[in-house]
Amino acid sequence: MADSLNCDLKYLSPLQLFERVTEQGEKVRALKAGKAPKDEVDAAVRMLLSLKLSYKTTTGQDYQAGLPPRDLVLINNGTTKEEDEDFVDPWNVQTSNAKGVDYDKLIVRFGSSKIDTDLINRIERATGKKPHHFLRRGIFFSHRDMDQILDAYENKKSFYLYTGRGPSSQAMHVGHLVPFLFTKWLQEVFDVPLVIQLTDDEKYLWKDLTTEKAYEYAKENAKDIIACGFDINKTFIFSDLDYLGSSTGFYKNIVKVQKHVTFNQVKGIFGFTDSDCIGKISFPAIQAAPSFSSSFPQIFNGKENIQCLIPCAIDQDPYFRMTRDVAPRIGQRKPALLHSIFFPALQGAQTKMSASDPNSSVFLTDTPKQIKTKINKHAFSGGRDTIEEHRKYGGNCDVDVSFMYLTFFLEDDDRLEQLKQAYTSGELLTGELKKVLIETLQPLIAAHQERRKQVTDEMVKQFMTPRKLAFEF
Amino acid sequence: MADSLNCDLKYLSPLQLFERVTEQGEKVRALKAGKAPKDEVDAAVRMLLSLKLSYKTTTGQDYQAGLPPRDLVLINNGTTKEEDEDFVDPWNVQTSNAKGVDYDKLIVRFGSSKIDTDLINRIERATGKKPHHFLRRGIFFSHRDMDQILDAYENKKSFYLYTGRGPSSQAMHVGHLVPFLFTKWLQEVFDVPLVIQLTDDEKYLWKDLTTEKAYEYAKENAKDIIACGFDINKTFIFSDLDYLGSSTGFYKNIVKVQKHVTFNQVKGIFGFTDSDCIGKISFPAIQAAPSFSSSFPQIFNGKENIQCLIPCAIDQDPYFRMTRDVAPRIGQRKPALLHSIFFPALQGAQTKMSASDPNSSVFLTDTPKQIKTKINKHAFSGGRDTIEEHRKYGGNCDVDVSFMYLTFFLEDDDRLEQLKQAYTSGELLTGELKKVLIETLQPLIAAHQERRKQVTDEMVKQFMTPRKLAFEF
Repeated sequence: MADSLNCDLKYLSPLQLFERVTEQGEKVRALKAGKAPKDEVDAAVRMLLSLKLSYKTTTGQDYQAGLPPRDLVLINNGTTKEEDEDFVDPWNVQTSNAKGVDYDKLIVRFGSSKIDTDLINRIERATGKKPHHFLRRGIFFSHRDMDQILDAYENKKSFYLYTGRGPSSQAMHVGHLVPFLFTKWLQEVFDVPLVIQLTDDEKYLWKDLTTEKAYEYAKENAKDIIACGFDINKTFIFSDLDYLGSSTGFYKNIVKVQKHVTFNQVKGIFGFTDSDCIGKISFPAIQAAPSFSSSFPQIFNGKENIQCLIPCAIDQDPYFRMTRDVAPRIGQRKPALLHSIFFPALQGAQTKMSASDPNSSVFLTDTPKQIKTKINKHAFSGGRDTIEEHRKYGGNCDVDVSFMYLTFFLEDDDRLEQLKQAYTSGELLTGELKKVLIETLQPLIAAHQERRKQVTDEMVKQFMTPRKLAFEF
Repeated sequence: MADSLNCDLKYLSPLQLFERVTEQGEKVRALKAGKAPKDEVDAAVRMLLSLKLSYKTTTGQDYQAGLPPRDLVLINNGTTKEEDEDFVDPWNVQTSNAKGVDYDKLIVRFGSSKIDTDLINRIERATGKKPHHFLRRGIFFSHRDMDQILDAYENKKSFYLYTGRGPSSQAMHVGHLVPFLFTKWLQEVFDVPLVIQLTDDEKYLWKDLTTEKAYEYAKENAKDIIACGFDINKTFIFSDLDYLGSSTGFYKNIVKVQKHVTFNQVKGIFGFTDSDCIGKISFPAIQAAPSFSSSFPQIFNGKENIQCLIPCAIDQDPYFRMTRDVAPRIGQRKPALLHSIFFPALQGAQTKMSASDPNSSVFLTDTPKQIKTKINKHAFSGGRDTIEEHRKYGGNCDVDVSFMYLTFFLEDDDRLEQLKQAYTSGELLTGELKKVLIETLQPLIAAHQERRKQVTDEMVKQFMTPRKLAFEF
């Protein structure tokens, strides 16, 4: 399909191509917002990637939303190169590579730093704790200014953690746990306060939801987050729709960010168009503002400029690149970041798991039987077509989703290494590997469900009440 | 100057002209934001009007910010017509006509309705009070849905009033009193609650101010507003920077408006460009939201959809055209409006009085001597060049600023009519007319200053505390 498409496209001018890419991007967004069937969305995304490739081949430049082609270098000689380009922004992750997004390339493109062995060792020295397996296994792989956090920490200067979630539905999947499990670990080993933003306003703006529904999802999601085991004395969870109207500091920081970011900038960063609503256009400031401690006068007793560290998936980085750009201009510190890779969909690492597609995800509400069926039926396998071939050539852990999931949830390093070797050598069959995953996830999710049952509405209310936390700065 | 300019411009394409107008509009805004000298701003505004005229002559269309020319009808035959076009938006008012803006044309352009004798008589019947001289003299000249307010009022259904002010400096001028004096009258005769928005966030976004300074101006301005005599039991004054963080309903309405207005729309309505900050772009929703009673849960006890009536100067209408467009789509009632003409600058009715130019205004802080000097020195006269000519041909009240001011502030209809006849016939000289104005304004301002002295910080705090007002709906 890509070939015949490119054939048509080569007669278009750079500007016409630019417009085709822009239109297609809007179409993808509309389909997602309208919860179109997954196949339809996937086809539209593939078309988008293909159009972007044609644009690049024709103009020699990467497509940048809102920036029509200028000073064109025409390098199209009538043929098109089969070049792959990963697509990553806060709403879409797409790659044509079964191993998933090329994260080393992403580090270069985003201008962040790799979390290397030196940094991991330094975290171990500073905290006196064995690094989390998400660090050891490269699941949190990239950072911004983590060394500065450690410099300060070693000099007894503390910081706070900020992470979040967009409550797009009641149900969360196992992938959503990743930033929270890691954040919980960071909170424990560094002993620092934590704020968790639930962007119910974002979901209201992007989806076909009422504000009431979005807020309800936020409270339901808060229960799953609380079930991860956060300390109520050190953690503040807030819904934007709720907290914006009950904080003397939050809106002031939002409007300061909004004064220092132009439409041109958010166009370039987030791909907004002139047809987007002004709520979307100004929303990035609302995700930026919790990076500044003055947004939480109750927690920090009005103290400004306490350093912030944000653990998040790499697709959220555009928000914080923008935040870091603005921070010094409004007299604030740049937040530091720790980025994770994406949690892959059951069908394969080409895209991230999505709560809106029930078959792409193992949900935190799934029964043991559902978990078993989903993994057996949908988990993309890196094994061979026949048992004979598998025994002879072995399976491919790099593309096997069951193995990928085990790197996230099987804590035992030795066991994981054994599984890898046995699968790669062909000794372990796909069905056997899936069985290990099922037996890992079933008790993990059952335990989560048990803890979630203990979370009362009263506890949610307490976590979501602006208050002083058990810290002195 | 306009001629040679147009001569250059006639060789430009419609799109080039469009770009020249857009650039010049941005220049005007930048000069104003940067508080450039008045001469420089005036020159830039004149250039802008001239460019717009050329644009219209060339394309046969009115310039609309953000909407490049389409389906061009070229009517330029090499000559340019001397056609005048008034320019009115929330930041600029400019006309080349010494009588001021053509308000009948504005009613047609904005699609509002004229306040005619029938409506004024109906207000008199409904309230049992003599209509305010601002109504009798056409100072409040245009409305939207005032008849519906009266329909409901006659059926014992009440409403609330909403007006506001952008606190761009500590000092307010006499023109700023106009909407407040009228609103106070409306509150008294209809016996309804009132909310007054101080858009300190807007001023922070548009001017070179800190949030602290803007909030300080808001509180200072509140004192002048309170000094107009509003009833503390029926009036809530709020600063956006303050109230947004202390209302459970305000932000929810803001985000609802922001979801239903696109960048294309605010571009068309307010002339924003891609280089404007996202704070400006999303601000119109913040001025819109107080039109909905659910923004004030404390006042209305959570009751939604109480009808709102907004008295304001006509330049604020773009905000409320947008609000009325959005209201039904978010399940809210359209606010009704009463529009006033602009308060002219001392130098003449071509533009409105501006607080940022001390010589264009009589300030509420001016001493009797300053008032006298300013009026004698700067008030544009419709009198003749010599006493002999004046006696012979008479003065022109239509362009005489002293006479215009008297229509605002001299309540005695008979006296005003006498002055008009005497001035028009030449019997009354310019100096004598100015003396009447000075003697009208001096005690009025002195009394205001006296009342303002009585306004304590504690009273400001009370007026600005969200609370239940003395009304049941």
